[in-house]
Amino acid sequence: MSEKAFQDYYPDDLAHCYGCGRLNPDGHQFKSYWDGEESVCTFTPEPYHTAIPGYVYGGMIASIIDCHGTGTAAAAAYRAEGRPMDSEPLLRYVTASLHVNYLKPTPLGVELEVRGRLKEIKGRKVMIEEELYADGVICARGQVVAVQIPEDMLPKPRA
Amino acid sequence: MSEKAFQDYYPDDLAHCYGCGRLNPDGHQFKSYWDGEESVCTFTPEPYHTAIPGYVYGGMIASIIDCHGTGTAAAAAYRAEGRPMDSEPLLRYVTASLHVNYLKPTPLGVELEVRGRLKEIKGRKVMIEEELYADGVICARGQVVAVQIPEDMLPKPRA
Repeated sequence: MSEKAFQDYYPDDLAHCYGCGRLNPDGHQFKSYWDGEESVCTFTPEPYHTAIPGYVYGGMIASIIDCHGTGTAAAAAYRAEGRPMDSEPLLRYVTASLHVNYLKPTPLGVELEVRGRLKEIKGRKVMIEEELYADGVICARGQVVAVQIPEDMLPKPRA
Repeated sequence: MSEKAFQDYYPDDLAHCYGCGRLNPDGHQFKSYWDGEESVCTFTPEPYHTAIPGYVYGGMIASIIDCHGTGTAAAAAYRAEGRPMDSEPLLRYVTASLHVNYLKPTPLGVELEVRGRLKEIKGRKVMIEEELYADGVICARGQVVAVQIPEDMLPKPRA
């Protein structure tokens, strides 16, 4: 796997996401990495991230798929342009749509692994497909349509 | 609006959901109510529930739509059978699929209102459509397919 997480390349003013911002001490701080052609994010939910006792809350699963999707979208876009994630111009993505199919209950108490791959880049949109595994068993599938962040959503004008 | 939230009818052993369980002190404790033919859930995210500074985290939006969807599914199923939510047999739902379209950035710092309505009941499945508003402006649309909880997911045999 790559050594530095996708999210560690986000500039400081875009690093406060509750899901994956390294500068949000209250957040989950999800981290995504390349593993060959796939991206991977691992996370162990806390005991209170429960749905029904013993199983992981669906909103948590949606959150991981969301952040891992936009992170993979950014990484794939840089890769498609053949340049590193710390090069200019900045490519950062927000979620246009999120779809999660819950295939089976996801057990609490084990590390979850989410694997993503690029489906398509189409202008400012990037489509990512994902699967979530618990103990090697697929429990959910996700699709994220990420769109390059509009200039007017950026916290301040960029140099 | 109805006086008691849908989630307040869930039996104790199904009331630990991180999103909407009244017995989960670490969770969001979303509450859903009838307002005529529509269901409504209001929630004000915390400042740290951020995506990009100034906007609400997409995973939080997905979480509200998820829990309000399964709650509305349960309430609609009881209503379709013409009986109150505290009557037996128990009808409780989990999410089979969740779809969220993020129409525009959702501002932080205001109360969000999610409105849901029954689209269809088909056997053990209930389809719910939702919209999320901030300051009266629609910011997201959601669709939830909820499925009646499998017996083997219940924490213990029910009387």
